[in-house]
Amino acid sequence: MMNYVLGLCCIKCGKELQAEPGIYTCPECGPQDGILDVVYDYQNIKIRHSRQQLSQSGDYSIFRYIPFLPLNPETPRPNLRFGWTPLYRPPGLAKVLGFTNLYVKDDGQNPTASLKDRASAIAVIRAVEEKMTTIACSSTGNAASSLAGAAAAMGLTTFIFVPGRVPQGKVAQLLIFGANVISVQGSYSDAFRLSAEAIDRWGWYNRNAAINPYLVEGKKTVAMEIAEQLNWEVPDWVAVSVGDGCTIAGVWKGFKDLYRVGWIDKLPKLLGVQSSGCSPLVDSFLENRHWRPAEENTIADSIAVGVPRNPEKALRAVRESGGTMVAVSDEDILDAMRLLGRTSGIFGEPAGVTGLAGLRYLGSNGVIKSDEKIVAIVTGNGLKDVKNAIAAAGEPIRVDPSLQCLVEELKWRGIE
Amino acid sequence: MMNYVLGLCCIKCGKELQAEPGIYTCPECGPQDGILDVVYDYQNIKIRHSRQQLSQSGDYSIFRYIPFLPLNPETPRPNLRFGWTPLYRPPGLAKVLGFTNLYVKDDGQNPTASLKDRASAIAVIRAVEEKMTTIACSSTGNAASSLAGAAAAMGLTTFIFVPGRVPQGKVAQLLIFGANVISVQGSYSDAFRLSAEAIDRWGWYNRNAAINPYLVEGKKTVAMEIAEQLNWEVPDWVAVSVGDGCTIAGVWKGFKDLYRVGWIDKLPKLLGVQSSGCSPLVDSFLENRHWRPAEENTIADSIAVGVPRNPEKALRAVRESGGTMVAVSDEDILDAMRLLGRTSGIFGEPAGVTGLAGLRYLGSNGVIKSDEKIVAIVTGNGLKDVKNAIAAAGEPIRVDPSLQCLVEELKWRGIE
Repeated sequence: MMNYVLGLCCIKCGKELQAEPGIYTCPECGPQDGILDVVYDYQNIKIRHSRQQLSQSGDYSIFRYIPFLPLNPETPRPNLRFGWTPLYRPPGLAKVLGFTNLYVKDDGQNPTASLKDRASAIAVIRAVEEKMTTIACSSTGNAASSLAGAAAAMGLTTFIFVPGRVPQGKVAQLLIFGANVISVQGSYSDAFRLSAEAIDRWGWYNRNAAINPYLVEGKKTVAMEIAEQLNWEVPDWVAVSVGDGCTIAGVWKGFKDLYRVGWIDKLPKLLGVQSSGCSPLVDSFLENRHWRPAEENTIADSIAVGVPRNPEKALRAVRESGGTMVAVSDEDILDAMRLLGRTSGIFGEPAGVTGLAGLRYLGSNGVIKSDEKIVAIVTGNGLKDVKNAIAAAGEPIRVDPSLQCLVEELKWRGIE
Repeated sequence: MMNYVLGLCCIKCGKELQAEPGIYTCPECGPQDGILDVVYDYQNIKIRHSRQQLSQSGDYSIFRYIPFLPLNPETPRPNLRFGWTPLYRPPGLAKVLGFTNLYVKDDGQNPTASLKDRASAIAVIRAVEEKMTTIACSSTGNAASSLAGAAAAMGLTTFIFVPGRVPQGKVAQLLIFGANVISVQGSYSDAFRLSAEAIDRWGWYNRNAAINPYLVEGKKTVAMEIAEQLNWEVPDWVAVSVGDGCTIAGVWKGFKDLYRVGWIDKLPKLLGVQSSGCSPLVDSFLENRHWRPAEENTIADSIAVGVPRNPEKALRAVRESGGTMVAVSDEDILDAMRLLGRTSGIFGEPAGVTGLAGLRYLGSNGVIKSDEKIVAIVTGNGLKDVKNAIAAAGEPIRVDPSLQCLVEELKWRGIE
């Protein structure tokens, strides 16, 4: 295969494996612990590619970083615009939060409106490279809708396992994209387990992000874009929500890959944020102990993951970065949705703004300084979960179609 | 002001007016008929700008076409990525429809997920140029949410008038963006009338697209992008849904402006499509008579406009282009949603895919030839209207979390 992948490396035992079809986890450490990392020939990437060369690229998508992706550049790709989402510097938000150097990466501006599109793009291309025609995953929602969208564009069949609680917007996406949607009447853990059994039973391609080591490689492109959009001046902090742990692990892999080829000269600190209604990884991090399964009691459905599938990669990323983790309440999350919308015109779903909510908390208690350079990643669009948006933002003013009614209604609200 | 605007021209009587704040319609023809067009100094644009120069621009947004916009380039802009949406060439869709040269412009990939963002960006900048701090509009939904988003990013106050029937997703956006949302218990016509009265009463900036001649100038950028993304080889047909008539008028203005400066050497035919549940302009066009008010009986809420506000610009655009108009049923619209999602991974709202539904119809009856170059504009994202998406796409397969249950459910559906 024409790419720079040298092999796979078990994050637990360090064993190196050949990157071959069907190899997803370390055979010695098992599917629970033996998560694999993709290792590239960084020396050769460094020799053959440069930031200067990249700046000439007209490809404004994740594929501008093709040397860092585990793909044959010749394989057909789904015809959608993945990645190269906007990085904003919203003055109103910065003022309210008291940060002078704050950026927001709006990954809700992906084809199916979440960061997961970056991973699903890789998944469907890998599936084609491995000659598979059916692809499956379990998901809290966004991985599902992104896989369904990318697979539709690629002409592949999908089986998608979601827990019964998934918001309607995400289910609607799945159905429109023609997926076979299995709504598992149980928790995300139940959906994950059933998908694993079904993948074994029918031999489908496995897009479960924690298990499939190539998906983090898609997610890492969000970090590469942040670095490039900031003209390679790496932020002090990157804040992101944490569920299974794959996204924050992907962010870290992206910065580390750039560091290894010398395109950036420092690494950011990572801030991983969960809802206090489901914070197994935050608790593990703060109490410095092994993680334990948790209840899934939060409105932030995308990160309501009681049994995270990639805990080690996530915890290791935060520790290596010298960053930290924090849990915020659902009320803080709804506040962050309102604040981001009102000050910036950006509409995030609850899990999408959880990183921002954590940032606000750590800013207020002084852990993050007001002049540090900070990027909050908004991982998904609020249109996916309208019910919670309305819970956050209240109801409209209802009037009969007469100016007199309106004048009275507004007067009552202090507008004359 | 430092731009190329020469003045305004009444589309009815041809009278030329100075482009001054507060001038929205022709004083002689009145606000109903005296819609104005913005006239530029095309000669000077041609001298000072070129396609070659444009190709060097790093600004991938509507503002790359700043010489063609009625803005002072120095005025602050809302910090959101408006426009430069992807133009796809989806093979699966082309095959089903029997067109060999079919493109889809996904304008759902705008900051608030609809084409209307292009107009709202202009509106908020113009409001700031005219020293206004409060801006108002009536809308079937998308103009509203886009105005609320752009105004939030710009720090302006908004009053938004929507008919009671607006889908929840759009209302949620408005509220999250901090708009004062007036839900008028009546039709879109009622909402429009009340907004006009309120704008008079309180002196707010008027973003009503038909009335404010500058908004079509934002919408026209979709045509400019199509031309540039096709390497200036203009399509034979551009299909788009029609409500008030402003969007199709904007598409036409965009191509005409490019033609006037010699950047393109032909003009496309326009296909304007409405739902048969609300088709006053299609009926007027096909029966060659003045339009008459219609009921608003369609699921395509964004184009459920019984009393269109820009009928003349729209009808004139279609006629000048040598194109045509057609009405399609709501069932055709739901079919088009399903088809686009399943073949291409693109999720459009009902009005968003109405242009495509019309294209399908005219392809099947031979008006549009299979090898013509065609662009269908998808004007808004399906996440804005989840209820209709589920109506289009059906329900998921519900199972208990056991492989046995799943095997039985799938067997029953023919999957073994």
